[in-house]
Amino acid sequence: MNTGGYPHLGSWGPRARIDCQAISHNLAWLRRRVASAGTQPVPRIWAVIKANAYGHGLAHAVAALQNADGLAVSDPHDAYHVRSLGWGGPLLLLSACGLEVDTLADPALGELHVVIDDEYQLALLEASRLTGRGLHVWLRYAGRLGSHGLRDPAYGRAYARLQSLQRAGILAQVGHLHHYASAEDPDALRQERSEFAALVGHHPGPCNTGNSAALCGAAPEALDDRTQWLRCGLLLFGASALPGVTGADLGLRPAMSLQAPLLAVRHIRAGQTVGYGESFRTQRDTYIGVVGVGYSHGIPRSLWQHGRLLAGHGGRPVPAAGRVAMDTLTVDLGPDAPEQPGDVMTLWGQTAGGAHLPVETVAAACSTIAAELLTSLTARVPLQADS
Amino acid sequence: MNTGGYPHLGSWGPRARIDCQAISHNLAWLRRRVASAGTQPVPRIWAVIKANAYGHGLAHAVAALQNADGLAVSDPHDAYHVRSLGWGGPLLLLSACGLEVDTLADPALGELHVVIDDEYQLALLEASRLTGRGLHVWLRYAGRLGSHGLRDPAYGRAYARLQSLQRAGILAQVGHLHHYASAEDPDALRQERSEFAALVGHHPGPCNTGNSAALCGAAPEALDDRTQWLRCGLLLFGASALPGVTGADLGLRPAMSLQAPLLAVRHIRAGQTVGYGESFRTQRDTYIGVVGVGYSHGIPRSLWQHGRLLAGHGGRPVPAAGRVAMDTLTVDLGPDAPEQPGDVMTLWGQTAGGAHLPVETVAAACSTIAAELLTSLTARVPLQADS
Repeated sequence: MNTGGYPHLGSWGPRARIDCQAISHNLAWLRRRVASAGTQPVPRIWAVIKANAYGHGLAHAVAALQNADGLAVSDPHDAYHVRSLGWGGPLLLLSACGLEVDTLADPALGELHVVIDDEYQLALLEASRLTGRGLHVWLRYAGRLGSHGLRDPAYGRAYARLQSLQRAGILAQVGHLHHYASAEDPDALRQERSEFAALVGHHPGPCNTGNSAALCGAAPEALDDRTQWLRCGLLLFGASALPGVTGADLGLRPAMSLQAPLLAVRHIRAGQTVGYGESFRTQRDTYIGVVGVGYSHGIPRSLWQHGRLLAGHGGRPVPAAGRVAMDTLTVDLGPDAPEQPGDVMTLWGQTAGGAHLPVETVAAACSTIAAELLTSLTARVPLQADS
Repeated sequence: MNTGGYPHLGSWGPRARIDCQAISHNLAWLRRRVASAGTQPVPRIWAVIKANAYGHGLAHAVAALQNADGLAVSDPHDAYHVRSLGWGGPLLLLSACGLEVDTLADPALGELHVVIDDEYQLALLEASRLTGRGLHVWLRYAGRLGSHGLRDPAYGRAYARLQSLQRAGILAQVGHLHHYASAEDPDALRQERSEFAALVGHHPGPCNTGNSAALCGAAPEALDDRTQWLRCGLLLFGASALPGVTGADLGLRPAMSLQAPLLAVRHIRAGQTVGYGESFRTQRDTYIGVVGVGYSHGIPRSLWQHGRLLAGHGGRPVPAAGRVAMDTLTVDLGPDAPEQPGDVMTLWGQTAGGAHLPVETVAAACSTIAAELLTSLTARVPLQADS
């Protein structure tokens, strides 16, 4: 039943619209970029879909990434989930922490690659009697990230033990994995690469490297014929990991648009306060919009001081006004606001009319990174694939 | 199959342990505090369980709050959910935004109270022909929060229209609702109350007020015989809304403990870096612990600069070290670390050995409030009721 005067809002909470075609587009973009480096053979691409595919939903991501060479997850449960979604290609488990031999041995997981970080995990492999499983193992170099992996001489000893397992037919392949600490900084990236190159100079075998920040920058040019695989996550969802550069600047398409309804439009007199802590005081008569999204949906409270939203299909930019509350936030629509309750407000991504607010811009306004915004929406935000 | 050397971690991700008895304890604490004010009749208590019961799970909260006088939710879907969980008492819908007459008229919702914020919603009520439904309506005073509700003279006109609906038998009761903007500041709270008292001085009827910050402070002393209901949310979950005061300081018990396993313990030499951006550099040889929780679980990245965790059952405090990553964070366990992989790390709440890290302390380290931490955990964090 619709009722006189009050708009039918459908839902009064936010939703995250997922554009699966954008994810496919971004993978194709990445393939072209990697191919353009001219390395032979062209490195294969692990599409990293950890953290529920950077918040976009595993099912959406798996459907959109059928052309990836492999999918990389961090959680053994996600490995089973991805297989249940019909993915038949290689699968990379980014951490062997907590992993059990039953999982490694399970033929239901198909072509399985695992990352080994330490001697505990190595001992697990050695005790596993996985003959015939065809497991692929990547030994992680600790590098500057420091929290995972090994460095020489322990790295060399562990690699030699893995090579023994390969010779014994327990492993199908052994290689080297590097996870950059500072790929958004060209100088730091160059140093990290040079340290890794020095390490693998002592040990044969393929390499597995890259991340979104490195692939936005100079990475393809630095590839060599030992780079068998490149890993990439954030870029596939249309966001850049480089400061001051958006995915759109690079030719990527944003895969998530976070939207919420305008619940109410209220006239406020000059000098009145809005929000907890009387945190916003109007300088003029204006209209305040109440938007149906708040910090309990995963929007940082820190958004309010520098954040903007896009109003309506046209995407008129309007500033946040007053502290973000649990279920709502408020914007200053201005004295001539054309917006009405029921209008769609866009927190990041694209409006129906094609306006775009990059998630990277919103992240900067919240003093954080796009990956935090994308991955930390709560269960109260439904994901809805664009048709 | 357990394996030589590597601990069985069960799950390598975090979980939020929910102590339902603590929620019941906190409600009893609040009842005593309200009764001690000596007002007759003693105001009744709305237990506010918006945002999935401040992140604790509606089912846990409804089970623990059977002694509340009423339950308050913000979302019509939650109203139905609470009824499906067996709650038979009064139910308060904190916002009529997007509400439809079908919902208001539905006898399955039992004794229903709704908050009216504007003339749109009033017109909906007038058009609704809800005779016999026995709906209770609270008109919201805009006050200093500004984003919801009305102020005189519009408030008075709306109240008169509601009184007409009551006389016509369409509404069972009409009253006044106030939502404080700055209850944590005693001077601001006094002013807000005085403005509300001036407003309701012109209009008869019961009042519905209070919030956790006001109830931690001087609120009970300020009650009068028109205060029929007090609303309280955060306090019931054991957290304080007052700066520098924890729920435990007040005699409350924390209802949520967020824990994650220690995935790995790594020796790091003096001068080596840890974390993205090489954000932590050790000053000495030490052990770094990798903890299975990160920003994709809803932990703010901002935790790393000033945050601490409690290690093991005993709860040894250890500082965060290096930027929080998507699935993990790192702590400096020190050169004599007794911890082992598989040990439980507590991000807030209580350890098995009774040590306690207040969520308010963690929130301060992240430059935010306890309510944001509690309500913004993602679906990747299972809630587990203590037995």
